[in-house]
Amino acid sequence: MADNRSGEPADDEQGERGDGPPSVTIAYIAESAGVSIPTVSKVLNGRSGVSGQTRARVEELINRYGYRRPSGSRSNILELVFRELEHMWAVEIIRGVEQVARKNRVGVMISALGLHDTPAMSLEDTVGRRPRCVLSVAQLSPSEREKLTTKGIPFVVFDPIDELPDDVPFVGATNWRGGHSATRHLLELGHRRIAMISGPDHSFCRARTAGHLSALAVAGVPADPELLVRTLLTREHGCDAARVLLSRPDRPTAIFAANDMQALGVYQAARELGLSIPGDLSVVGFDDLPVVGWVDPPLTTVHQPLSEMAAAATELALTLGRGEPVHQVGLEIATTLTIRGSTAPPKG
Amino acid sequence: MADNRSGEPADDEQGERGDGPPSVTIAYIAESAGVSIPTVSKVLNGRSGVSGQTRARVEELINRYGYRRPSGSRSNILELVFRELEHMWAVEIIRGVEQVARKNRVGVMISALGLHDTPAMSLEDTVGRRPRCVLSVAQLSPSEREKLTTKGIPFVVFDPIDELPDDVPFVGATNWRGGHSATRHLLELGHRRIAMISGPDHSFCRARTAGHLSALAVAGVPADPELLVRTLLTREHGCDAARVLLSRPDRPTAIFAANDMQALGVYQAARELGLSIPGDLSVVGFDDLPVVGWVDPPLTTVHQPLSEMAAAATELALTLGRGEPVHQVGLEIATTLTIRGSTAPPKG
Repeated sequence: MADNRSGEPADDEQGERGDGPPSVTIAYIAESAGVSIPTVSKVLNGRSGVSGQTRARVEELINRYGYRRPSGSRSNILELVFRELEHMWAVEIIRGVEQVARKNRVGVMISALGLHDTPAMSLEDTVGRRPRCVLSVAQLSPSEREKLTTKGIPFVVFDPIDELPDDVPFVGATNWRGGHSATRHLLELGHRRIAMISGPDHSFCRARTAGHLSALAVAGVPADPELLVRTLLTREHGCDAARVLLSRPDRPTAIFAANDMQALGVYQAARELGLSIPGDLSVVGFDDLPVVGWVDPPLTTVHQPLSEMAAAATELALTLGRGEPVHQVGLEIATTLTIRGSTAPPKG
Repeated sequence: MADNRSGEPADDEQGERGDGPPSVTIAYIAESAGVSIPTVSKVLNGRSGVSGQTRARVEELINRYGYRRPSGSRSNILELVFRELEHMWAVEIIRGVEQVARKNRVGVMISALGLHDTPAMSLEDTVGRRPRCVLSVAQLSPSEREKLTTKGIPFVVFDPIDELPDDVPFVGATNWRGGHSATRHLLELGHRRIAMISGPDHSFCRARTAGHLSALAVAGVPADPELLVRTLLTREHGCDAARVLLSRPDRPTAIFAANDMQALGVYQAARELGLSIPGDLSVVGFDDLPVVGWVDPPLTTVHQPLSEMAAAATELALTLGRGEPVHQVGLEIATTLTIRGSTAPPKG
């Protein structure tokens, strides 16, 4: 399998059906549904001329048997789907995907699902382009995942924010380990009153928070529930949360924020309150956005290996797109702690 | 022309030949070259079976007559080309392009030309995908532009860094006006010793610098050649240049940097020298990257209207891709000055 892909141009039109697992044919689906082969083909291609009832029955069988359209009928395209193109790290993801796709001579189509698309509109253009595979930075809803499956388009979810069914391929980061190493670093510096500003109830925030609490537990430091706050993952919300934490009589000597934007908000709150970083307060973030190396002081943060994640996710999507078997459908790539100037031992 | 595009899905396969200007046919080129029509077709499609000499003659005629392949033979794709995907503002460009393309039901393919591609490799995959049009953030070399023209693929250069021949479509920003308004703002605050850190000898840097000098001239402030330095457009180079400027006995009270990264370098130099911004030094940047609103103090800077530029460039590329006439092939979108906390009247 590895031999087939290293640098070798993928052939668009032929020779790819023999490698995959034995698969259900259109004829078999037609027979099971009691319809003609052209009818199944119409359903697969989203064409009209099929009653709603028949369409539903055929789609149900396509899903049940896991039918995959031979890739020769699809474009030589990987489609990279975002919900909104606004994440600061979108460029890093796009760059990682483009590099791997280019090596494989596969084009990268980029699209943003409209936030206000109806379920019927969502992914409509993507499906119409018949890409070889989809890499989705957007969190696909169950109905969106089903739409892709029905059309025989394999997909990979990038950095899932929620728990996914076990059979949904994904690539993420080791969020639990990242949270653990952030707080362990603060503990090793001698901090004991360590606050955490966490985010919404998404799985990656839960994992970062659990890692933080686990590091406290390992060190035998009791977790003070007053020092764990949850808010949105923005600079403004991080600032508000830090203002409250830092105005307490027994204020924390260190804050671990669930992402870098919140950590930049902590910087602002500290400035307002006349507290110096790291003299009066140590701060650790999560993500390692390019900007955090330029602020004063540069931020200690957990590095998300975005380019490695993008490369791995692209390899996985292309492998699925070729109909080849994969050994694991989910993958977490290790985070690393980047120590800069915002952390130091506590005073006194 | 405007009626044809607002929200109306572009039809991929038909009905587009009647709208454009009368154009040279393949038959005419075949006759002029003294070859068969299939031979011209082979050259257009990059297929083999044509001698080098014949190919050169046919390509020369294609260029001379400005032959454009009817767009029905091309994919419903706009290809967005970068040289390297590393600019912090790439996301804003991509988002602007994607929104307009989506409205027109055109897919956006993204590719990065390898820095070490040979001329033959460069754009090879792009041309092979036969996009409807190309929007290039990369500065296309004359041979790259010729390759696209030969293949009948219209293109637009985004934010050109060098002078282009008059017939090359482009969309940029009003760099001269931006430089002028930055320095005028500092003059209006009362500054007279205003330094500029400029960039390499690209047209956009020359325009920003000329705008700065013009503002000084209008105000009757003689330009001190010692206060105008040229260096690379990075934070490190901006910092080095500012260190030298700020160590002079008659140091400037304000610095206008040719881009935001250099301005962030000025921040670092000021910190090292114990100078406060804006108390001891006013700083103006250029670009308005997202990060510069979060630094301390937030940076006054010239805003590049990237999303408007991206939208206009996409409209222009799609119009050219439909073979419709355009009234102007070049366009500069107005910059605006965003005043934040890094500028104030000089002391004393």
